[in-house]
Amino acid sequence: MFDTDRLPYLLRRDTIARIDGERLLIGDRRRFPFERCSVPCTTIAEVASALKQMVTQGGGPLQVALTAMRFVARRCAAGAMVATVATFEAAAAELAAARRTNTTMARTLQRFTTALKEANPDGTLAPEQVDVLIDHLEQSFDRDYDAMSDYGADLLVDGDSVLTTCFAEHSFLMSLIKARDAGKQVSVLVSETRPYLQGARLTAPSLQELGIPCELITDGMGSHALADGKANRYMTAADVVAMDGSVANKTGTLANAISAKAFGLPYHVLAMSPDPTKSSSSDFELEWRDGNELLKIGDQPVTLASIAGWYPAFDVIDHSLVTGIVTPQGIFTFDTLAKQYIGRPRQGGTG
Amino acid sequence: MFDTDRLPYLLRRDTIARIDGERLLIGDRRRFPFERCSVPCTTIAEVASALKQMVTQGGGPLQVALTAMRFVARRCAAGAMVATVATFEAAAAELAAARRTNTTMARTLQRFTTALKEANPDGTLAPEQVDVLIDHLEQSFDRDYDAMSDYGADLLVDGDSVLTTCFAEHSFLMSLIKARDAGKQVSVLVSETRPYLQGARLTAPSLQELGIPCELITDGMGSHALADGKANRYMTAADVVAMDGSVANKTGTLANAISAKAFGLPYHVLAMSPDPTKSSSSDFELEWRDGNELLKIGDQPVTLASIAGWYPAFDVIDHSLVTGIVTPQGIFTFDTLAKQYIGRPRQGGTG
Repeated sequence: MFDTDRLPYLLRRDTIARIDGERLLIGDRRRFPFERCSVPCTTIAEVASALKQMVTQGGGPLQVALTAMRFVARRCAAGAMVATVATFEAAAAELAAARRTNTTMARTLQRFTTALKEANPDGTLAPEQVDVLIDHLEQSFDRDYDAMSDYGADLLVDGDSVLTTCFAEHSFLMSLIKARDAGKQVSVLVSETRPYLQGARLTAPSLQELGIPCELITDGMGSHALADGKANRYMTAADVVAMDGSVANKTGTLANAISAKAFGLPYHVLAMSPDPTKSSSSDFELEWRDGNELLKIGDQPVTLASIAGWYPAFDVIDHSLVTGIVTPQGIFTFDTLAKQYIGRPRQGGTG
Repeated sequence: MFDTDRLPYLLRRDTIARIDGERLLIGDRRRFPFERCSVPCTTIAEVASALKQMVTQGGGPLQVALTAMRFVARRCAAGAMVATVATFEAAAAELAAARRTNTTMARTLQRFTTALKEANPDGTLAPEQVDVLIDHLEQSFDRDYDAMSDYGADLLVDGDSVLTTCFAEHSFLMSLIKARDAGKQVSVLVSETRPYLQGARLTAPSLQELGIPCELITDGMGSHALADGKANRYMTAADVVAMDGSVANKTGTLANAISAKAFGLPYHVLAMSPDPTKSSSSDFELEWRDGNELLKIGDQPVTLASIAGWYPAFDVIDHSLVTGIVTPQGIFTFDTLAKQYIGRPRQGGTG
């Protein structure tokens, strides 16, 4: 198993979310790398609000949700909440509704509450069992990240320069670490990922922390890099993958996927599993955000406050643009993915 | 002729550059729209330095260079500089070297010094003739903008939503004004154009000043907009066009051009003329800028100062991606462009 102490600061479990007495602390990715701070929440409603406000993103909400279930169990044990299955179902539903495009958190919470219900048919429960269930889920994710990154590392070739968008987290960074362990020199070209700059703020400093060579570009430069050999492949995580191999991922992914295809270069998507409830991209529930969020970078306005912004938070990438989907079970194309996963809906997971 | 009083603030001749006593004032596009201020220069070396520092860009350097020739004439008349052709040639060479990709300024200065030399075979000159020559060049550009924007306006269809990158200046904004005059409803989707945000800061406020509907997007969102019908065509200026119809334009242009082609949508380039000295894109002299310029937006860092940036300032767009090049002589494709322009090298010009 991969030693999780080798992960960078941002991906360590307790820097994503941890319980501190009567508060759940969520690592504030909006302030990273300039500050290492967290947002304290005292209720599930506050946790859901923090997720909506993008305190954490990508795979962050999944870990926050798992920690939030432990937090509810603590509150039940302290007598502040009623120790019933319904209490956990309500908390899970509130969190799942906070981010609608990435279904991993929702699917994982569903798996958790189903297990809770099966174990407690009368609806009441002993809070201690929650930690056992969450431990089990976390270990399962760790095994899946380990398996995915074995496949990801195998894909990479000595000398590769990988273009990426946003923050592809465990599966991507572990693939890079394992590729380096195998003696491959691999560098990364990071698209800054406006408006929230996850590429600039999260991916690039994490790569630097790991000692993996990287350079930063603006979101308009990926095509140029693929055209002139500065990058020779494109890799991202996915917020959700449909059973036909179509993908939703952070805005900006489509442009690079189209360019990779135009220049005959591979685009690989790292994803725990397709979502068995999404047969194609038309089933995706795509999040749109307030156009005003584009008008500032931190406190700095980019234009007049009177200008309107248009902010589709996610791109849909047709399966014809995807070379392969890297999962814990192997690397699949659009026509082999369904064969692998139909009839065996797995747990949710995050790339 | 188009009434130049209808142009927005940024494109009025005296807000781009004007002479104020012993200073040449260059409108500072880096501060617009937050401030309307200018950078004062007292020597040609200071003007060249301001151009290198991106005080103005796109078509701005051309107008600055023309005003700088008037400025040198004033300094000659005042006895501060020697009134010779060589004085103007040296000033022109210093300015031309300040921005190397967009050849319009250099080609126009070449045309100016050639005329000066022909009129003054002994090498000395009367400074008053400079204003006559520059007046003539400015009027010629005005006529060309007028002709180009007639073709640009004709292209536009009622209901069009035009994606654009950077600040396509006179030819684009005049096309939009004329399309509206002709009763067409046309809106614009503006890519913010990192790192300097010319789309956000120059294009969007200028459109708003003209009352033309516009929305702002980040540079990663153009493909999404073209994919889902939010924009149905792409239009930009060009920094330089080769005789084979290939184009160099601001970083970020290639991604949208590839996407437009992938979705079967037109991409039109507005350009005064191809550069007769560039037979193909391999003749372009592409400017690379310091990667550190990506690391801030205004005063706001986007990541750690220790991260390296990669900053190709211009994209090369192969002619296979260009639907048509809109010039004062008409709209040309890669195979009709050379027929039009070979054997008749025109003056430099800017889209």
